[in-house]
Amino acid sequence: LTSADHPGSAAGPGPDPAAELGLLAPGRADSAVEAATGDAAWLAALLDAEVALVRAAERLGRAPAGTAVTVAAAASAVTDVRGIASRARDGGNPVIPLVADLAAAVRALDPRAAPYVHRGATSQDILDTAAMLVSARALRPVLDDLAATARALGRLARVHRATPMAGRTLTQHAVPTTFGLKATGWRALVLDAHDRLTAARAALPAQLGGAAGTLAAFQRSEAPESFGAAGAEGHGPAPCGAAPDCPAPDGPHDGLPLAAAFAAETGLPEPALPWHTLRAPVADLAGALAFTGGALGKLAADVLVLTRTEIAEVTEGSGGGSSAMPHKSNPVRATLIAAAARQLPQLAAVLYGSMAAEDERPAGVWHAEWQPLRDALRLAGGAARDARELTAGLVVHPGRMRANLALTGGLPTSERLAAALTPLLGRDAARALLTAAARRTAAEAIPLADVLAADPALRGALPEARLRALADPAGYLGAAPELTDRALARPDPPQEVP
Amino acid sequence: LTSADHPGSAAGPGPDPAAELGLLAPGRADSAVEAATGDAAWLAALLDAEVALVRAAERLGRAPAGTAVTVAAAASAVTDVRGIASRARDGGNPVIPLVADLAAAVRALDPRAAPYVHRGATSQDILDTAAMLVSARALRPVLDDLAATARALGRLARVHRATPMAGRTLTQHAVPTTFGLKATGWRALVLDAHDRLTAARAALPAQLGGAAGTLAAFQRSEAPESFGAAGAEGHGPAPCGAAPDCPAPDGPHDGLPLAAAFAAETGLPEPALPWHTLRAPVADLAGALAFTGGALGKLAADVLVLTRTEIAEVTEGSGGGSSAMPHKSNPVRATLIAAAARQLPQLAAVLYGSMAAEDERPAGVWHAEWQPLRDALRLAGGAARDARELTAGLVVHPGRMRANLALTGGLPTSERLAAALTPLLGRDAARALLTAAARRTAAEAIPLADVLAADPALRGALPEARLRALADPAGYLGAAPELTDRALARPDPPQEVP
Amino acid sequence: LTSADHPGSAAGPGPDPAAELGLLAPGRADSAVEAATGDAAWLAALLDAEVALVRAAERLGRAPAGTAVTVAAAASAVTDVRGIASRARDGGNPVIPLVADLAAAVRALDPRAAPYVHRGATSQDILDTAAMLVSARALRPVLDDLAATARALGRLARVHRATPMAGRTLTQHAVPTTFGLKATGWRALVLDAHDRLTAARAALPAQLGGAAGTLAAFQRSEAPESFGAAGAEGHGPAPCGAAPDCPAPDGPHDGLPLAAAFAAETGLPEPALPWHTLRAPVADLAGALAFTGGALGKLAADVLVLTRTEIAEVTEGSGGGSSAMPHKSNPVRATLIAAAARQLPQLAAVLYGSMAAEDERPAGVWHAEWQPLRDALRLAGGAARDARELTAGLVVHPGRMRANLALTGGLPTSERLAAALTPLLGRDAARALLTAAARRTAAEAIPLADVLAADPALRGALPEARLRALADPAGYLGAAPELTDRALARPDPPQEVP
Amino acid sequence: LTSADHPGSAAGPGPDPAAELGLLAPGRADSAVEAATGDAAWLAALLDAEVALVRAAERLGRAPAGTAVTVAAAASAVTDVRGIASRARDGGNPVIPLVADLAAAVRALDPRAAPYVHRGATSQDILDTAAMLVSARALRPVLDDLAATARALGRLARVHRATPMAGRTLTQHAVPTTFGLKATGWRALVLDAHDRLTAARAALPAQLGGAAGTLAAFQRSEAPESFGAAGAEGHGPAPCGAAPDCPAPDGPHDGLPLAAAFAAETGLPEPALPWHTLRAPVADLAGALAFTGGALGKLAADVLVLTRTEIAEVTEGSGGGSSAMPHKSNPVRATLIAAAARQLPQLAAVLYGSMAAEDERPAGVWHAEWQPLRDALRLAGGAARDARELTAGLVVHPGRMRANLALTGGLPTSERLAAALTPLLGRDAARALLTAAARRTAAEAIPLADVLAADPALRGALPEARLRALADPAGYLGAAPELTDRALARPDPPQEVP
Repeated sequence: LTSADHPGSAAGPGPDPAAELGLLAPGRADSAVEAATGDAAWLAALLDAEVALVRAAERLGRAPAGTAVTVAAAASAVTDVRGIASRARDGGNPVIPLVADLAAAVRALDPRAAPYVHRGATSQDILDTAAMLVSARALRPVLDDLAATARALGRLARVHRATPMAGRTLTQHAVPTTFGLKATGWRALVLDAHDRLTAARAALPAQLGGAAGTLAAFQRSEAPESFGAAGAEGHGPAPCGAAPDCPAPDGPHDGLPLAAAFAAETGLPEPALPWHTLRAPVADLAGALAFTGGALGKLAADVLVLTRTEIAEVTEGSGGGSSAMPHKSNPVRATLIAAAARQLPQLAAVLYGSMAAEDERPAGVWHAEWQPLRDALRLAGGAARDARELTAGLVVHPGRMRANLALTGGLPTSERLAAALTPLLGRDAARALLTAAARRTAAEAIPLADVLAADPALRGALPEARLRALADPAGYLGAAPELTDRALARPDPPQEVP
Repeated sequence: LTSADHPGSAAGPGPDPAAELGLLAPGRADSAVEAATGDAAWLAALLDAEVALVRAAERLGRAPAGTAVTVAAAASAVTDVRGIASRARDGGNPVIPLVADLAAAVRALDPRAAPYVHRGATSQDILDTAAMLVSARALRPVLDDLAATARALGRLARVHRATPMAGRTLTQHAVPTTFGLKATGWRALVLDAHDRLTAARAALPAQLGGAAGTLAAFQRSEAPESFGAAGAEGHGPAPCGAAPDCPAPDGPHDGLPLAAAFAAETGLPEPALPWHTLRAPVADLAGALAFTGGALGKLAADVLVLTRTEIAEVTEGSGGGSSAMPHKSNPVRATLIAAAARQLPQLAAVLYGSMAAEDERPAGVWHAEWQPLRDALRLAGGAARDARELTAGLVVHPGRMRANLALTGGLPTSERLAAALTPLLGRDAARALLTAAARRTAAEAIPLADVLAADPALRGALPEARLRALADPAGYLGAAPELTDRALARPDPPQEVP
Repeated sequence: LTSADHPGSAAGPGPDPAAELGLLAPGRADSAVEAATGDAAWLAALLDAEVALVRAAERLGRAPAGTAVTVAAAASAVTDVRGIASRARDGGNPVIPLVADLAAAVRALDPRAAPYVHRGATSQDILDTAAMLVSARALRPVLDDLAATARALGRLARVHRATPMAGRTLTQHAVPTTFGLKATGWRALVLDAHDRLTAARAALPAQLGGAAGTLAAFQRSEAPESFGAAGAEGHGPAPCGAAPDCPAPDGPHDGLPLAAAFAAETGLPEPALPWHTLRAPVADLAGALAFTGGALGKLAADVLVLTRTEIAEVTEGSGGGSSAMPHKSNPVRATLIAAAARQLPQLAAVLYGSMAAEDERPAGVWHAEWQPLRDALRLAGGAARDARELTAGLVVHPGRMRANLALTGGLPTSERLAAALTPLLGRDAARALLTAAARRTAAEAIPLADVLAADPALRGALPEARLRALADPAGYLGAAPELTDRALARPDPPQEVP
Repeated sequence: LTSADHPGSAAGPGPDPAAELGLLAPGRADSAVEAATGDAAWLAALLDAEVALVRAAERLGRAPAGTAVTVAAAASAVTDVRGIASRARDGGNPVIPLVADLAAAVRALDPRAAPYVHRGATSQDILDTAAMLVSARALRPVLDDLAATARALGRLARVHRATPMAGRTLTQHAVPTTFGLKATGWRALVLDAHDRLTAARAALPAQLGGAAGTLAAFQRSEAPESFGAAGAEGHGPAPCGAAPDCPAPDGPHDGLPLAAAFAAETGLPEPALPWHTLRAPVADLAGALAFTGGALGKLAADVLVLTRTEIAEVTEGSGGGSSAMPHKSNPVRATLIAAAARQLPQLAAVLYGSMAAEDERPAGVWHAEWQPLRDALRLAGGAARDARELTAGLVVHPGRMRANLALTGGLPTSERLAAALTPLLGRDAARALLTAAARRTAAEAIPLADVLAADPALRGALPEARLRALADPAGYLGAAPELTDRALARPDPPQEVP
């Protein structure tokens, strides 16, 4: 099992053998969500949260003018993802080493700004806020791709509102349906996913609570010093002293306006409470992402059936060829969507399970959220991109649909024929006649219309043209076209995701 | 391993050895949801759906007046749950044998009504509609219990808005918090769960699509017969003939008004499309139920910590005694809630996974929904009942909370002391002094205030009373009381669930 | 939504509206496992465990001769499943009320036997032992059904070892395979499942540890009384006094031989340690059950593909007909197996998750095991029964397999043709010729052999018979027959499950 | 939400913004498993599989001597993980672009070797074999860490075999146990995990089946050419012609010895059948990894309880300090293990679910395995490393254990006292006396022994020394030391993992 003598494995092809670059994830490699959720994007969001905290303090006059500019400049020098990841082991989260690096970078620029870095915050404030920023940013391309998918499906549904095809239940042909109804059903789920993700995204809140969620460390003391001169770096309230807005002993707590200003700086809504262990935002997002996986998974499941060699009613436009097996054109986009749809519910289960978080910060339950949340965003993002490409290029074969419908010789119309013949023959006779005819159709592959047209019992009872019309599956579409129209009245999402 | 020689196992104590009556489910036995989701309740809902279909037909003049009354009367005779369950094996769902039993019962009352039973519907129409009826009915007591829980938690939060207790992070005392803030956090999650379940419940739609979701079989034919005389029982459109509203060849499809009338009869909203394989309602309900499990799971997780023998800050009012171990009073309600919270995310994962349903009716994906949906309702229902009982009886021990806070000798205030001493001593000296003092507090169990008061470096720098105030954890509550007030402004749910 | 005015729902058709009798579980209703795992079977197993404890004490001379007979007789009177379930709410498990009922029944027969009921045991001892008994009993029919399934698949594989059919990858025809290879693959997984369940079953241990797993309460005291006269009922060690085997102060603990005797009485292996929170047996069983679901799920997934209307290469022997849709014959057995396979991994996830059980008895983690374990047994049991029926009746259509193979006009042989033509034409020319020919085959539906036979470039290079042989998919089976033979050498399981 | 104006997010700190380097995974960053499972390690294993195929061909005389050396040399030039990941989107797996890169590299070295690259294989052969190689390699450090953990736990158990501590059930003190029994229980689970992983690892098979698992393309043709001159690159059998071992028409298929040779070259066992859709090896590995997560999760759950501020019976040796909160020493290792244990069952559920794989290669089910398998290896690897560090440094505080035991004033001995007093007072009187005494102990915090010693009813009945001995929890350890000894007889794993 050793790979020592294999050149490929001797040294490893890259600088970091542990890195993941998408090799095992063709369903999401290169997607916009992938870039928006990589370690670099998380590092950027963590730094954005730290900078927002200083900006908020400065906006409220609790840090000298210019401090935030200094900290923001220093943040651009904090880039050692790998080192931060290593050092995160000690305390169990990446914010601790990140703050150390950021504080060092700030000190190098202006030591007076250093005390304002991370002041009063706890690691979870920064990590949760970053998670919300990453999620909100990553969902933008997901929503874009879902909107484009819905538009493409709307076009397909309009074109094929009355294109007959076999309805299939429990793998068997049932009565006919239309491709338009199928496409508009896919679209309805995609719009539902868009709605749920939009709602979940709009509710992603900023997080600021301090060590135990009480905002205690954000209270300025009544000591007479001005802010910049002292203060424990990274911890503890700054004294306000003679400042005119210094908190009165009975006045509102200093932490409340700071939490509001912090949220404003991040662009995220302010929550009613610090939510260190009230994980509704994460759970709701998890549910919306699992829903999205399911919505696209339905599309993929149908495409995989319809592209089967024996069925061949649709073809993926981008199905790759194979030089040695020219007959193969695999439904790769649908395959990769299906793979994502199988994983998303499990990740959501982890995240729903993490709601049961003990204490003011749980030991493990919170830490178990980070990767599943990222993975869920990435899988949904990849699936949405693949769905957009799949629906943009999907080739529909109405002729093949008709041919497949004819495979059962008109049997799917037996339901309708029974209703038509009953008044003519009586219920029992009509059923007996149809059952016998259907058996012959199935056994001898003679179309049901031919069998019935030759039946003396029907001679004269029903004109042959009428009989053939009743036995034509393509004429038995029910309300499929009308349902399609009705569902298409639901508008597409707006082009621009805010 | 044989149990043949054990009297208990020889015959089995009950008439149906396979039955489940709650023996392994103390968390949900006897709850209102349990009764609302048993096989009898499902059977009733299935029959309700069948009756609603006949009522809808009658309302539209497609069945003779009085038919629905007959069918409803016959439905009361369909009670053989066990037999229907057995016969469901053949076709894979219970509707097929149920329709047979119902039709037989109708024929026994009035054969003319028989053709209207299940006419045009497919098994999934009835089962899905019944699932929505059962869910809507079962959620009523869940919502009631959540509302009562929220009210109880509101009371606790108001009383204890400023009751100090240790904030705990990663199992260790951090800075203090208040029990009010904790209780209002629990309440916020319970209200969130109530919101999500209410929204999911309001959206549970009726289902009517026919064999492949096209409503095809609901079209009346143009044949000249009046309705009652013929028509294939249970299948196929009734002829309308001379009826003034007989469908015009180009007119709207007969199925659409029937679907609307059917929804109205069930009391459920009419969906835009038949949703045989568009499972948004089930997925949304699954998410809301998993959320509820998580919300109550947070409450339970905290109660389990706080009732530990060594912590003992709260006691379950109903904790059962033990004759031989009188010191034991187990937090049973929290235990059973915690058990439910561990199962709900997995059930939701099954249901989210079932969104990827191929064709017009999938082979297995749909069938995999039924039990997990029921189990999820039951687990959430049991957990909500236990939460109501738990919060109604929860005994809070503020004295013990203070005693525990004191365990660390004032160490949780080191954050605040550092901020206060820095202007007096300089940052480095303040930190060095505090670190040494804290080590002594931890090692020798001398309160931090005593250590500091004896430190010559602080003599004169800070009045001892001020020092002791700063080192009193109970005085370092941050914005906890204000946050509690703010969160309590969110109103309780209405008393009555519609 | 109210069902008050619907007769069906007014009263409920059965005596216990909360009962589950299989209505929503056609995949497992009426199976042998269902009866072996119902509440009555669990009650019997709980009583078996209690009786085994008294027998063990009597065997060791720690209870008077005849005590166990009395207790066993009393156990047969403990039948109130429903009442025990209700009363289980107080303490959170059913053993507490069960012991109360059993002790009362014993007292009614012979009060002197009462002190020996449940003596020294804890609820978890009884419930865990019962769970193992129920599991061991329930697995017997599962193993029987798997063995029968393996035998049926062996027969199918032997008959069809060289029956050509399309190999399908990513939904598309690839190169051919044989039905025998497919069937022997199914068999291999079924045998694997049988192996894993057999191993897991053989390791299911008895449980006896007492309140905290130390066996403390089983120590007889040195007090001078004889056993029967006193002793706290249900708790505490019996005094042994002058008994010759009374434990010496330094001798081995009394609990150890009792634990061994208890295990012997149950017929289950004795574990090295009480395993109240060492849940390996449950986790291993969970894994084996999930494996079984996956193994049968593979069979079902293939059958569902192969029975599709357009493919129709196999038919379920028992596929039910439909009076109104005579063309429908649904693969119901495969459908229900597929439904079970979707649920089992989630239940296993709960059980694996319950390994992380804190303390000597966890608050919730243990309670979360009971229903998922039962559900997993039931789902596996139903799936095994359905697999047995499915494979016993499966109808194979070799003609249809050949016809489907021909659908692609010989394209699956392009791999082989390329190898044969390369030495004749050179690599590039051979590939170009084949690619062009394959495109024509795909576009115009002319068999590849015809296209090639008409190609002037091949005239004379290859005899037409050789060309047609190379282009015949049915002649390109690779090692499929030999692989089938090799796999069939693996023996069937023994007929009798011990 | 835009991060454009934040320096940190403007450009991204690294070259590949999508890369994962461990930032969100402190539980596994820098572990040996992490390096063994990164994209570079997977690429190496994929190339190892390709080289093994050529070596096998050369060993059987089906490729010219020296070909494998050339291909191995070329493999060292295939390092573009990122590019392969991108190009993998087209066909849905990374092997297709990898083969293209490898073939190009081979052609650059020696064009005559090119036709032997990937000859006859399918992408899944290479990817599955690589997955097994990666798994086998990654499990070595996991097994090492588990073995070291077991040794450390054995040492702890031996030292503390009779160290009394509170047994805790449902969060409450029950009867006493010993820390040795607890540690030996942890060890038993770790050894169980070691056993299961060792067994699963030994069974990880090579994979070689060709396009549809029939080995068809490995058959040499009867054409008269020598091997090197031609053959479709990457596809199709090489002709053997005059070679003495050219396959006879009726002889064994060429693919079988090649599959055996390939397995030998990889160092992995040869399977009975190609297992493209017989996923027992992956499922078994998944189960063993979930088991490992649970085994270590039990250890972590207990450590998290025992390190609570109020309990403080153990301390993580490496718990990091905090400059501002010197009282904090978080159980970080246990926290990260607990986080891993929450995720592993979900990943196993995905992998068990993937057993239900349709056809000869499923569309999505297979693709859904890759990341969960890697993630599961990584989580288990990180948890095993953390467990090793945790147990190596765990500090046990026997004094604190005794102090906690005393918290309940001797109440845990009430079980024993009841047994001792019953013969003296009669059952009812003994129980009444004890219940009253216990209530006083609980209410007034007077030790139970003191209450009883002052009770006139016991004066003379029991010597006070005897009473105090009976009421001393530390003397009521049951068989805990003996059970510890017995469990310690199970040997540690061997030092060296093969």
